[in-house]
Amino acid sequence: MSKRLHVNLFEMNCVSHIVHGMWVHPDNQRHRFNDLDYWTELARLLEYGTFDGLFLADVIGAYDSFGQGPRAALEEAMQIPSNDPLLLIPAMAQVTRHLGFGATFSTTYEPPFAFARRMSTLDHLTRGRVGWNIVTSYLPNAARNFGLPGEVPHDHRYEIADEFMDVLYKLWEGSWDDDAVIRDRDRKIYTDPDKVRAINHEGAFFKVAGPHLCQPSPQRTPVLFQASGSPAGLEFAARHAEVVFTGGLTAQDVRRNIASTRARVRALGRDPQAIKFLVQAGVIVGRNDEAVASKLDAYRQLMSVRGALVHAQSEIDLLAWPPETPISTVTAGRGQGRAGGIGRGVLAGFDPQLTVGQVLRQLESFDRDRYFVAGTPSVVADTIERWLDEDDIDGINLRQYMSFETARDFIELVVPELRRRGRFRESYQEGETLRERLFGAGQARLPAEHYGARYRDPANLAIPGQPLRFDPPVSRAVPVG
Amino acid sequence: MSKRLHVNLFEMNCVSHIVHGMWVHPDNQRHRFNDLDYWTELARLLEYGTFDGLFLADVIGAYDSFGQGPRAALEEAMQIPSNDPLLLIPAMAQVTRHLGFGATFSTTYEPPFAFARRMSTLDHLTRGRVGWNIVTSYLPNAARNFGLPGEVPHDHRYEIADEFMDVLYKLWEGSWDDDAVIRDRDRKIYTDPDKVRAINHEGAFFKVAGPHLCQPSPQRTPVLFQASGSPAGLEFAARHAEVVFTGGLTAQDVRRNIASTRARVRALGRDPQAIKFLVQAGVIVGRNDEAVASKLDAYRQLMSVRGALVHAQSEIDLLAWPPETPISTVTAGRGQGRAGGIGRGVLAGFDPQLTVGQVLRQLESFDRDRYFVAGTPSVVADTIERWLDEDDIDGINLRQYMSFETARDFIELVVPELRRRGRFRESYQEGETLRERLFGAGQARLPAEHYGARYRDPANLAIPGQPLRFDPPVSRAVPVG
Repeated sequence: MSKRLHVNLFEMNCVSHIVHGMWVHPDNQRHRFNDLDYWTELARLLEYGTFDGLFLADVIGAYDSFGQGPRAALEEAMQIPSNDPLLLIPAMAQVTRHLGFGATFSTTYEPPFAFARRMSTLDHLTRGRVGWNIVTSYLPNAARNFGLPGEVPHDHRYEIADEFMDVLYKLWEGSWDDDAVIRDRDRKIYTDPDKVRAINHEGAFFKVAGPHLCQPSPQRTPVLFQASGSPAGLEFAARHAEVVFTGGLTAQDVRRNIASTRARVRALGRDPQAIKFLVQAGVIVGRNDEAVASKLDAYRQLMSVRGALVHAQSEIDLLAWPPETPISTVTAGRGQGRAGGIGRGVLAGFDPQLTVGQVLRQLESFDRDRYFVAGTPSVVADTIERWLDEDDIDGINLRQYMSFETARDFIELVVPELRRRGRFRESYQEGETLRERLFGAGQARLPAEHYGARYRDPANLAIPGQPLRFDPPVSRAVPVG
Repeated sequence: MSKRLHVNLFEMNCVSHIVHGMWVHPDNQRHRFNDLDYWTELARLLEYGTFDGLFLADVIGAYDSFGQGPRAALEEAMQIPSNDPLLLIPAMAQVTRHLGFGATFSTTYEPPFAFARRMSTLDHLTRGRVGWNIVTSYLPNAARNFGLPGEVPHDHRYEIADEFMDVLYKLWEGSWDDDAVIRDRDRKIYTDPDKVRAINHEGAFFKVAGPHLCQPSPQRTPVLFQASGSPAGLEFAARHAEVVFTGGLTAQDVRRNIASTRARVRALGRDPQAIKFLVQAGVIVGRNDEAVASKLDAYRQLMSVRGALVHAQSEIDLLAWPPETPISTVTAGRGQGRAGGIGRGVLAGFDPQLTVGQVLRQLESFDRDRYFVAGTPSVVADTIERWLDEDDIDGINLRQYMSFETARDFIELVVPELRRRGRFRESYQEGETLRERLFGAGQARLPAEHYGARYRDPANLAIPGQPLRFDPPVSRAVPVG
């Protein structure tokens, strides 16, 4: 059977997430992000289209490298204002039965105990439909919102993240046995205390006693998503991730990235096929070429290059330079940080011999990347089939140009064509949890060879010389009778 | 017009919240706390009954003073397992239009920036129907879940809490002007950056840069609830709280507590009537005396004294002592901490001359407290009128014995009787936000004389010598053209 596409809608609890300038379109619904109805309508639409899930990005600071602090970000609504992502999930879960939810949360600034409880709560409330995109956060303003003087160095963030994961696995996988809750009404025992244990974690960054406050949820550990990039990030993804975001300019790039991640995964004793690879993709589809061209043109006219520069944390306002200036002149003498001050993200990878005008034109276009297609349903489906077969990817996070137009177009035009070709599910049938949707029925839990599964063995929770069970915190008087 | 009753249902995202042992009753729904449906059914019921709100208690650790660590708490399901409270609110908001939601959150362990954003998100999603019960947490296990060796000393917790509040007010009231979001589609400006500012808070416990990530929500600051007790707690409540939980054994006690809080409030320049006083109340109602007696008897038989001892953090298992032993013998030589090791909360205030048996019998009964009534609708309504008129209280947090029986009984039997007497609203009509429900239409925001309102003036945000607006984090190259 040909490989089927996994697809999430890529979202964020804000106005301008990833394609900037679009909020001014009169049909765009994004300014409704503060309203529950926006999210419940969207969730119902995606479940109608049998999407795998809705995936929520997040940042916990403002983009303030471009211009005078966050002024440009505010004008562009570039990820500010933005609200908490986790709080959307219960309302969307309430109006759906199958749709999965991925949420982004950083391991750098908040305590693991509270986060473990929030995710277990969501896994209960969604009946196992939740995933977590593990990030370590790079915005300097985020660090300054949490008491730090500036960005935590990259590799140090990954050391913190590794220990954060240990704490979570101990709470999620180790603190309660599957059969701890017995709900014995006759004996009046809700939980068998011999099947619950403290974790007594003591590491370089965290001290966490436990026990976990939540009883076992359907997936225990939520599905773990991560983007690999740097060597430290790749190592982290190979150990922890079940779904990896990847990318590249050519099929060869992407295959190479995937192969190298799979090799690291194999070296760590995991099944290299136990990881799915997703790319962020842009799809503009119309019933005929004229409809496609007119949509593409309308979007291009709204596209804000300034928003893209703000997003890239560019310290240089390229719009203020004469278009014929070589990029190498703009960056001369600015050192190596963040691509010489131009920024990272969308600006990474530009040839320094290009001119300012050429770079700006490329930023205005939508097609820099391999994972963009504009066309009729059959052209889009041909392209997606090529991505699946030539690049070895498993699915896409669908970039939104317009809410709800992007999702509606995909569901009305692309989904039926992919179904005809056997490339997309006809209905939800892979099991009830998000992990089963990705890996098949019966796979609701982390696989046994995953790093986190070791904490199911109480021996791996104990600190040598410390008792495994609860230690009475104070001595007690001996009662008489 | 006679004073009308405010009423919230008192809940917690767990099995056994405040009356223990009841979960074994076959009609009790509490074991469904992991399911969204439990909460949405309950929210719909309360809105049908025109309750003010649903109020969620919380703790972030296990009760482990009684016996061998948290073993007894686990067996009794005494607030463990327990899930995150905030995540219930969006789903309940989704199925209601008027009901308010109060959630408990501690100022001691998590960073204020993330909490400010979560509450603003909830205030948006609920359209201004959210309140916050400010607590500082006392469980030693909670401290050990967040990296601390043990409980933070009481007065020190209030110093942290005071600074935590300052950070929140700066973010909620000061960082964005009311009219900052202009959504100007022609000029392509979503937010006017001149109306948004960093807070640059630097205090003894927190450093928070800002700006707040959320645009202004309907109430900005959620309605602030607090329980006063100690002198530090009273001072804190007088400065911050808009609703105070109080109590006492007699009407005189309660009136005295309320009067002393109002005096402190006045001394701080606030309107003493700008605070509402709620008590936790138990109401058991039936259509006739036989129905009341049979319900009372059924509940008493299930009531778990052991659960109450665990809840009280009693270090002594009174059930293991001969019933005729005087309490003074049990506590002899145990020092003064926590009422000599018997515990606090429900056990506080027992006469040391009582015997173990007498104390246990009182624990088994429901009527130690002034705010308990069992009777027919007219008896209950008479009693509630007396509480309102004699004790100077404004309303109750209704203790649940059984879910959903307690709320359903109150709505079917007590609400109509109170309405006949002009003591309870006929419908929601006080305005759209929770603050307006409490203080009247047009009062959606903190009053101008409230401590937190000072941060609406940007001058009170600035640190002397520091610029008020955003400070560019790095120097920039001067562009050519």
